[in-house]
Formats: sequence, structure tokens, C-alpha cells
Amino acid sequence: MSDLGSVKALAFDVFGTVVDWRRSIIREGEALGRAKGVSVDWAKFADAWRALYQPMISRVRSGEMGWTKLDDLHRISLDRLLVDFGIRGLDEGEIDHLNRAWHRLDPWPDAVPGMTRLRQRFILATCSNGNVALMVNMAKRAGLPWDAILGAEVARHYKPEPEVYLVTCEMLGLRAEQCMMVAAHNADLAAAAGCGLRTAFVPRPLEYGPGQSTDLSATREHDVVAKDFEDLAKQLGC
Amino acid sequence: MSDLGSVKALAFDVFGTVVDWRRSIIREGEALGRAKGVSVDWAKFADAWRALYQPMISRVRSGEMGWTKLDDLHRISLDRLLVDFGIRGLDEGEIDHLNRAWHRLDPWPDAVPGMTRLRQRFILATCSNGNVALMVNMAKRAGLPWDAILGAEVARHYKPEPEVYLVTCEMLGLRAEQCMMVAAHNADLAAAAGCGLRTAFVPRPLEYGPGQSTDLSATREHDVVAKDFEDLAKQLGC
Repeated sequence: MSDLGSVKALAFDVFGTVVDWRRSIIREGEALGRAKGVSVDWAKFADAWRALYQPMISRVRSGEMGWTKLDDLHRISLDRLLVDFGIRGLDEGEIDHLNRAWHRLDPWPDAVPGMTRLRQRFILATCSNGNVALMVNMAKRAGLPWDAILGAEVARHYKPEPEVYLVTCEMLGLRAEQCMMVAAHNADLAAAAGCGLRTAFVPRPLEYGPGQSTDLSATREHDVVAKDFEDLAKQLGC
Repeated sequence: MSDLGSVKALAFDVFGTVVDWRRSIIREGEALGRAKGVSVDWAKFADAWRALYQPMISRVRSGEMGWTKLDDLHRISLDRLLVDFGIRGLDEGEIDHLNRAWHRLDPWPDAVPGMTRLRQRFILATCSNGNVALMVNMAKRAGLPWDAILGAEVARHYKPEPEVYLVTCEMLGLRAEQCMMVAAHNADLAAAAGCGLRTAFVPRPLEYGPGQSTDLSATREHDVVAKDFEDLAKQLGC
């Protein structure tokens, strides 16, 4: 581990790193299915919804779409999936509620205790592609102790564009090397490192379910590799 | 009081409303004076620093200056005041530390207990002209339980420009009437009301010291007038 004494803030990826989006979306889908008598493979549904995430974001990054917040990208994908999965009979309020399932994702079990320790020593900020309202509502429900909600919507760019990482550091009043990006995704950390941030890799081998084949381990050099947020806190001296 | 059942978030003015900037700046000045053997009327110094706030912000609002965060406006004013007050012998680190006195303002005694109650029921966001780092560092030191740090730097406009209020609501994913602006300043609340936000006036009759003559009471109609944050929590059913 390189000298990390100058690190003042931790910038977190959220989907997959802090929260278990897949099991949470399955849970939300199952609840809807029971309430509406709809039979769907909700694991497939969750995977399909997440699979549309990168293509949607790429449309904004490429300029094909103007700036569009993630809630609205999720909704465009959802409208398509409702057709693909043959889910009928939902009114606008029910569709909107399902779309906001992303506001109700559950944290991994180590997330809140680890962050609570880390917060004693570091500024904790989101550096997510999720929009501010999504992050605020998620934090409020799950008890995530953020000091600041930053990231894509504030920067009006989507990761891995450098603006997202750089605006996050700038708004915290810190130089890039005073910030450490925490993520379960090697590519996110590579982009952050390219902007000068320190990096911490925390694998989430069940993010994509039991058959996950990517990001099972660090594929590049990181300043810290921790097995979960409690271990990250320990390694950072909290 | 009009029907406030639809209010989901409270957007707070911070300087004067949440924190007692004047006595905090005096405290910081006195500590510096003792350390450096400088004799200054720090109350006059604090008042002079704050008196330069609106003129500086007006230069940004008018377009005479490009977007400049409040830390940098404070520093321009401070450099001038060091000359005006004959304060010599400070090195760059000491001047920067004094400039960041605004990151170390103390809350009014009712602020943290009142906000802690309010946070059980509402999203609490800053809607301040202070930049994000200033707000984050202040919150961390003073224990202010914000759900989101928003306001001028995120909107890249200074209050009372409507963009600041509207971007704050938009980022929270709420309509203006679902947000209530909380401030000790009638003009700030008038601008927020003009954007459709609900308003709560909380007088801070000692903000400008014992001789304060403005904002001692509500000079327009507000949805709530509360004597402090504990009273605001009570009136809002928390």
C-alpha cells in the first residue's frame, strides 16, 4: 500500500459496491408479482434491466441523447422490459413505483457498519451514476451515512468520463490524490486512477448473482484491496 | 398555516439561519490575534467581512466575474481586509486557515437538536450560497445532519437567483411546493416563494450582533413562523 496519509475523502461507487441491486430488484419484483398476480422470472428481469444500463448511458455519453438523469434512463428501459416480459395491467403509479425500486436498494451487510467507522476519519461522498434524488432516498431508507451526494448528476457527465471524478474532488475542495475511489469494478477504478485519485477495490462476487464471472478479483494495481467495508476501515486505520 | 402535508424536504439557508457566523468569526479572529500578537477589533472585522459578501456575489450575478465559489470570494475580501485592518505577518497557510474560518462556524444551540427531530420526517438539504466543501466541512465539525449538500455551487448561480431554489428541488426529485425553504431572512424566503417553494421564517435576532435592525420579525406571509428549530420541528409535527 502506498502512503495514504494525505487521503481526506472516500468517493464511492454505489450500485454493486454499496448496495446489492440485483437481490433488491428481485425482491421488489416479487412483491409486485404477488400483489398483481404477475408471474415473471424476476432474476432475469433484474439482469435485463441492469443490462440496459450501459447502453442507455452510452447514448448520453455519445451525445445521441441530451443530459438525462438515471431515473429517466431506468424508466425508458423499464417501459421496454414491461413489453418484453409481458407485464400488463400496471397503472402509471405502479410503474413509477417499480421504477423507483432503485431508490430502495439494500446495502451489503458490511456497508453501513464499515462506512460508520470510515466516516470518523474520512469524508464519505457518493461518486455514482445515480441521480441525487435516487441516492438521497436510498441513503435515507438504508441509513447510509454520506457526508455529500455527488457524482454524475452534479457533474452532468456519466462515469467513466473524467469530469465525474474531477468534479467530485473539486466540489470537496480536494486535490485528486486526496480522494480515494472505492468500487467493486476494476474499470471504474481505472478511470478514477487516470484522473489521479487513489483507488480501493472491494470485490462483490455476488453482485451479478451466483454465476458472476467479472470483477471477482483485482485485475490492476490498486492502493488498497479489501474484502469488504469493515476490512477497508481496518486497513485505513479506522 | 396552509396545508403542509405534501412537504417532503426542507431546504435551509445556512449562514445566520443554521450557524452563528458572527460570533464564530470573532472567536477565530481572537484565537489568531492571541497566537500572532495582533490587536484587532474582531467584531468589526467580522462585520466588515460579511459586509463584502453581497457586493462580491453581485459581481458574479451580474456577470462581471465568471462563476467563482464562495471560498474564493471570501479570500478576495479577506486579502483586502488584512490591508484595511493593518494585519501583517501572516503566511499563506495562516491566511488560508483564517479564510476557512467559514468552514468552522458554530451552530445556534437549537440547530442540531431541531434538525435531528426534523430529519426523522423530512429530507434536509442545504440551499446556501456556501460552496460544497465549506458546507461539508462545517457539517462534519458541527454535526449537522444533512441528507444532501446542494445550493449555489451545484446550481452555479447565487441566491436569490431562481436557479438555486429550482435546481435544489429538481435534484431532490420534488416539485417546488414539496420543498420548504427555511431561513432567517425575509428576502431569501420571498425569492423561494417566488419559485413556488413553501417558506418557514426562523428569526435570528443576534445574527448581526446586539444592534441588529433587520429581519427581527416576519415582514411577509410565510407558511410557518417558528421561534427556533425546535419550535419548527414541533410545528411540523416532528
